[in-house]
Amino acid sequence: MSGPKAQVVHSIPTYSLTRLAREWLAEDTPNFDPAGVCVGSEEVEAKLLCKTPHTVLAGSPFFTAVFTEVGCTVDWMYQEGAVIVTAVVRGPARCLLLGERPALNCLSRASGIATRCSQLQLTAKSAGWHGEVAGTRKTTPGFRLVEKYAMLVGGTSMHRQDLSGMVMLKDNHVWGISKLISSRNKILTAELSSTHFHISPLQELHVAARDLKNEFPSLQIEASGGVTPENVASYFSSHVDIISLGCITQGCPVSDFSLKVQKPGANNSLPVVKVHIT
Amino acid sequence: MSGPKAQVVHSIPTYSLTRLAREWLAEDTPNFDPAGVCVGSEEVEAKLLCKTPHTVLAGSPFFTAVFTEVGCTVDWMYQEGAVIVTAVVRGPARCLLLGERPALNCLSRASGIATRCSQLQLTAKSAGWHGEVAGTRKTTPGFRLVEKYAMLVGGTSMHRQDLSGMVMLKDNHVWGISKLISSRNKILTAELSSTHFHISPLQELHVAARDLKNEFPSLQIEASGGVTPENVASYFSSHVDIISLGCITQGCPVSDFSLKVQKPGANNSLPVVKVHIT
Amino acid sequence: MSGPKAQVVHSIPTYSLTRLAREWLAEDTPNFDPAGVCVGSEEVEAKLLCKTPHTVLAGSPFFTAVFTEVGCTVDWMYQEGAVIVTAVVRGPARCLLLGERPALNCLSRASGIATRCSQLQLTAKSAGWHGEVAGTRKTTPGFRLVEKYAMLVGGTSMHRQDLSGMVMLKDNHVWGISKLISSRNKILTAELSSTHFHISPLQELHVAARDLKNEFPSLQIEASGGVTPENVASYFSSHVDIISLGCITQGCPVSDFSLKVQKPGANNSLPVVKVHIT
Amino acid sequence: MSGPKAQVVHSIPTYSLTRLAREWLAEDTPNFDPAGVCVGSEEVEAKLLCKTPHTVLAGSPFFTAVFTEVGCTVDWMYQEGAVIVTAVVRGPARCLLLGERPALNCLSRASGIATRCSQLQLTAKSAGWHGEVAGTRKTTPGFRLVEKYAMLVGGTSMHRQDLSGMVMLKDNHVWGISKLISSRNKILTAELSSTHFHISPLQELHVAARDLKNEFPSLQIEASGGVTPENVASYFSSHVDIISLGCITQGCPVSDFSLKVQKPGANNSLPVVKVHIT
Amino acid sequence: MSGPKAQVVHSIPTYSLTRLAREWLAEDTPNFDPAGVCVGSEEVEAKLLCKTPHTVLAGSPFFTAVFTEVGCTVDWMYQEGAVIVTAVVRGPARCLLLGERPALNCLSRASGIATRCSQLQLTAKSAGWHGEVAGTRKTTPGFRLVEKYAMLVGGTSMHRQDLSGMVMLKDNHVWGISKLISSRNKILTAELSSTHFHISPLQELHVAARDLKNEFPSLQIEASGGVTPENVASYFSSHVDIISLGCITQGCPVSDFSLKVQKPGANNSLPVVKVHIT
Amino acid sequence: MSGPKAQVVHSIPTYSLTRLAREWLAEDTPNFDPAGVCVGSEEVEAKLLCKTPHTVLAGSPFFTAVFTEVGCTVDWMYQEGAVIVTAVVRGPARCLLLGERPALNCLSRASGIATRCSQLQLTAKSAGWHGEVAGTRKTTPGFRLVEKYAMLVGGTSMHRQDLSGMVMLKDNHVWGISKLISSRNKILTAELSSTHFHISPLQELHVAARDLKNEFPSLQIEASGGVTPENVASYFSSHVDIISLGCITQGCPVSDFSLKVQKPGANNSLPVVKVHIT
Repeated sequence: MSGPKAQVVHSIPTYSLTRLAREWLAEDTPNFDPAGVCVGSEEVEAKLLCKTPHTVLAGSPFFTAVFTEVGCTVDWMYQEGAVIVTAVVRGPARCLLLGERPALNCLSRASGIATRCSQLQLTAKSAGWHGEVAGTRKTTPGFRLVEKYAMLVGGTSMHRQDLSGMVMLKDNHVWGISKLISSRNKILTAELSSTHFHISPLQELHVAARDLKNEFPSLQIEASGGVTPENVASYFSSHVDIISLGCITQGCPVSDFSLKVQKPGANNSLPVVKVHIT
Repeated sequence: MSGPKAQVVHSIPTYSLTRLAREWLAEDTPNFDPAGVCVGSEEVEAKLLCKTPHTVLAGSPFFTAVFTEVGCTVDWMYQEGAVIVTAVVRGPARCLLLGERPALNCLSRASGIATRCSQLQLTAKSAGWHGEVAGTRKTTPGFRLVEKYAMLVGGTSMHRQDLSGMVMLKDNHVWGISKLISSRNKILTAELSSTHFHISPLQELHVAARDLKNEFPSLQIEASGGVTPENVASYFSSHVDIISLGCITQGCPVSDFSLKVQKPGANNSLPVVKVHIT
Repeated sequence: MSGPKAQVVHSIPTYSLTRLAREWLAEDTPNFDPAGVCVGSEEVEAKLLCKTPHTVLAGSPFFTAVFTEVGCTVDWMYQEGAVIVTAVVRGPARCLLLGERPALNCLSRASGIATRCSQLQLTAKSAGWHGEVAGTRKTTPGFRLVEKYAMLVGGTSMHRQDLSGMVMLKDNHVWGISKLISSRNKILTAELSSTHFHISPLQELHVAARDLKNEFPSLQIEASGGVTPENVASYFSSHVDIISLGCITQGCPVSDFSLKVQKPGANNSLPVVKVHIT
Repeated sequence: MSGPKAQVVHSIPTYSLTRLAREWLAEDTPNFDPAGVCVGSEEVEAKLLCKTPHTVLAGSPFFTAVFTEVGCTVDWMYQEGAVIVTAVVRGPARCLLLGERPALNCLSRASGIATRCSQLQLTAKSAGWHGEVAGTRKTTPGFRLVEKYAMLVGGTSMHRQDLSGMVMLKDNHVWGISKLISSRNKILTAELSSTHFHISPLQELHVAARDLKNEFPSLQIEASGGVTPENVASYFSSHVDIISLGCITQGCPVSDFSLKVQKPGANNSLPVVKVHIT
Repeated sequence: MSGPKAQVVHSIPTYSLTRLAREWLAEDTPNFDPAGVCVGSEEVEAKLLCKTPHTVLAGSPFFTAVFTEVGCTVDWMYQEGAVIVTAVVRGPARCLLLGERPALNCLSRASGIATRCSQLQLTAKSAGWHGEVAGTRKTTPGFRLVEKYAMLVGGTSMHRQDLSGMVMLKDNHVWGISKLISSRNKILTAELSSTHFHISPLQELHVAARDLKNEFPSLQIEASGGVTPENVASYFSSHVDIISLGCITQGCPVSDFSLKVQKPGANNSLPVVKVHIT
Repeated sequence: MSGPKAQVVHSIPTYSLTRLAREWLAEDTPNFDPAGVCVGSEEVEAKLLCKTPHTVLAGSPFFTAVFTEVGCTVDWMYQEGAVIVTAVVRGPARCLLLGERPALNCLSRASGIATRCSQLQLTAKSAGWHGEVAGTRKTTPGFRLVEKYAMLVGGTSMHRQDLSGMVMLKDNHVWGISKLISSRNKILTAELSSTHFHISPLQELHVAARDLKNEFPSLQIEASGGVTPENVASYFSSHVDIISLGCITQGCPVSDFSLKVQKPGANNSLPVVKVHIT
């Protein structure tokens, strides 16, 4: 219920949560909410269920912020980073309906990312590699804060938050690094992408990493390019400090969450038909 | 080069494109752009490459909008919906760098969705099913416009754009539908989710669809719940009008795009090391 | 105090109310509020009065939202759609003054629209016509949500909320409709404007409506063009499904509301002079 | 074609025009523009027509700004304040359609206000009264800039732009004014509302105005309360400096404008049916 | 504790305070707050200290608004305009840290301006000059509201709030003024800048002020150009109504405020080292 | 005309410039621009003059952005970092007036900061100290981007851009640093503030710096607290890596810039009186 991962929720200022919650709600219900008229304002209670096994929960502060914005309350039984998820949302029926889709959409994606990150960390740990598994800037436009946060929850480095590091493209890299390495007060990272090697990419990458590390011991070596949960182990090496994976935020499976409204006395044995009117 | 899909680009007003482009750029480079100082303003030219075979291009108006916003131009050789993609981006080096990541992030996701939609349409067509393959509201918060647009490009219905249809949850649905069906000037859709049937979900869903259709011929039947590209064919039936899939926008694989700067006289045979300074 | 019209307030999400309230307040008092310094923060109570007889109240959620934003409370004696209006606003004098003008400006316009709509509905009902009286997109820029909402309260259809329906201009309309009518899952509406007929507009419109309806029974017929509360009855016909009027939102009379501060022990018999300092 | 009224267009900074144009367009077409796909991007030309006789044109900078934002151009044959209106809008068909409704909605309202103001000025001039006809803060929330601007075009004072003047409510006004009148560098205006006099309101108002003016010659006297174009003349007096009317912006009739697309070779003799698809 | 200056806090609407507080917080902590994870959510209490003697407190409503936004409370022992400052801020440690820098940055600047204004007022009073010491539009872009407000607290006129007065540049000014002076209902101010006189600027300015005042007794005379706290007295004259100083908002010294967290049982005798990790 | 400082202009993305320019213009002229009506749209040309000797120019991209936004052009004779400043602004008179105040307000402040930073760098260089002179987070709320940018132009480190470094407050610092120093991939900076030493602050600070540096050679030492341009030299030492000064952005003198409109044939020998109408 506590511990480092649980504290990660403190890394998002509340005004950021509020701002995002409003934007997402306005996207899902821009103006009118005709459904609200039908559903009414009766107080209801819904249980958050997760159908995807081994899910690492991430995104609960965003989920809560969405429901807070529409006047509902959320009680979490477990915290960020936990693998067992239970929460109860309470509020007027129409408000619960307003928040449901944006809140679940965020939670499913964040938890999907945290789960993948957590598995990658486990793979590294099992293999005895002590470097850093990292995400990239290959995030969904407008959703980076959530995706980077989910990496934190999953125990992975957020890595480059935005386009702020100086990038140099060098054909003859040695001269450039020598010059840079002398600058005080800066961390230098050399990124080696397997896509830049053509004959035996992985093997060449490891040779280049070793050579660079030997020549510039304080230089950090980052391996990238086509890394997946399946092949990540082949990038582990004592000369590689960081492995960065685009697949943490691209095509990452979501965790399947849903809200189940608890209706007192309802006979739930009959199939339910949702009827939509356009 | 022309045709229906190509015209889909007209469905996004230019001011929406501009607004999103600015938000995405500000997310990737919020304030300062130290990289810009290093890279400089020399005019360069970059070629857009797609490494994922059979990709259906989607998102080019957004891609262009991002680069327009930073003072670059984009020439597209093929249009939205095409499976061969080539484009050239031209502009000052530092501006190209500013736009690169947001533009590619959008294009990769939109094309991934259009490709999956296009494949689903093909599956339906091959099977002789004439209903509508549709997306859901399970989109990435803040990114719905792009994802719904990509469905259009892929030939799939955007379906519910936002929370606007009235939703009724009925235990005894027959009475409710009878009452609603009499309302003039409205389209009624009954959604049958396989997740609501417990013994033999798919078989029960088809029985329910047939019964409802027989009783209310003007009622549209929508099947949903756990539909994937692999099992979609088992949902085809003459009583099902719409099949909606969350997997179009959840965990959908991206198409792998990159920009390759063309440098005159560069010896490209040597491996390139990117050096980042923090 | 309850009933369908009263529930209409549920169709506006609270975050939309808050956003509009803030925009309107900032328009009326953009930066400084020197009046606030004079008036002070003494708790006062003001009564909402309506001088326009037969007014249908509309806009109370917006009115309340404005005062909530400046720290006042509003108690409504009657609800949306009622013809007797009484409310009491309580809060610090300077806050009441801040909210007064934006809140009244909204309420006067919304109630004016609801009153006109309600009268149009009554006219239709009295005449035994069962079609739909509808508004148009001829709304005040930036104020559409309130104006469409007021139509709902007044019992009128909001009709086209925004520019989303496909519009086809056909000289030879029959061919076009035949083709479109076959498309499944869409509602087709043919709009006949009296302004397009030149010899005997109203008579020609009714003939065209009858002919179209006979040929395409599922087609909805909408009559428009110069419809006013005075002449609307001449548009009633069993072949006309919808009558749309721009005058619901253009030049519609407002209802005259004011707030009267209750001052204990004040001698209200003397004329009051407001003194403004520029 | 030139003169004082024409110069009024310079009183709106271009960035205000752009900002409003974007907000209004986004209100009318928030996300997708399916109509754009049908209508296409063929270059067309439309003529602006005004069916309301004696209309004083106002709002052309806003009208132009809306069309500029969607890539169309506008040529004005006459300028702000003129009573003959002709303009031509040119651009891609789908862009013209995007801008049409917001641009006309603004123009119709602004010109309606300018026309009423112009008539009020004429009434005052004919009667030989040299005071100031003024608007109030009773404007449409969010649309004040346009409405105040239209007053300027119509030759009327914008008067109180926002809640900035100090307001004092005094039972015994004489003492208060004596004290205030001594303050240097301020203009003092005493507002006398006919609604505060109960036996013979208009007569009492004129007596109060005369008495105040005699006692405080430098005090400005403003008459208000129930003033209409019909009864305004009864408020004229040499002791009244300003007459303010809420009806300039409340329930003011609009001017009826429309855009007529010029189609080369079109046979315009046949009635036209607009077909909407929902 | 009370009095005119204390009431100045009522001149800023609460929604303006909230809006600015959010913008400033987002500037200081745009997305993530890694410090929050370390510092935690333990309730703490901090004392506001001011090291600059004779500081006139200004900006407390903004200071409070920042801390309110992050969930802290502020208790002020003294009010705006007081020269003794003490306040206590209470809240979770990480929230206090979030608000600290923006809140202090605002308070230091506002109090610096109020202090200078207060001193200028004292100089004028001591010299027996009864004109108005005024600020200018030379404010920090985006921060004008605070700076103009601080002038109010310091007892100085805010003067021109924005670019709204008509400005005429005349070589032969007499003709222009004669014409303008006849316009009713306007206050005319002639600005004489010492920078426009070249031989004996100050002496020439006083001669011009006297000549203008004699010719146009109702004209206000404003002296400006290079006025400083040191030389302001040389601008005092019975013909000068206003003296405006850019140095109130340009290069004005700040008051040095800090927050000291009260830690129970802490041994404060040892030097403290802050350790930053990048 | 070229060189490192000139390239600094590339560090601000163009969309950030545009956004700020719009905000500042809207602050100075929120709605109407009555002055624009008087001044008219005649094309004029104005020369930028700097009266403050030895000014280091900073802020030209912002200055240009403001004028671009109102349709004027700016030609710079010299670039960022130069000590001789000349520029010519051309455009319609009313547009030039709109941009003048926000553009000058920004340029004066940015150049004031760059000038002070440049002098500090010179002091350090003359004394043979090779550490880093740095700014702080003590910036004007809402204006940080400009102030941090001006530091860059002046050759000073922007240092902490926002609240992102972890901050630890330790009574017994040695244990904390030992633990942190072992973390890979991070730069550790210990900040020693002279305000934390009470007997002989400066001497104690230098002793603490030496002791820490000896114990942790990789630790960066930052000295702060009461540093001014006058006393900065006393902080120089081989054990101090960074000296940070709040006075770079607090109470920093501005550079005095003005725009002088060039009027052909004007007799500039007569004093000019600006007449303002309220």
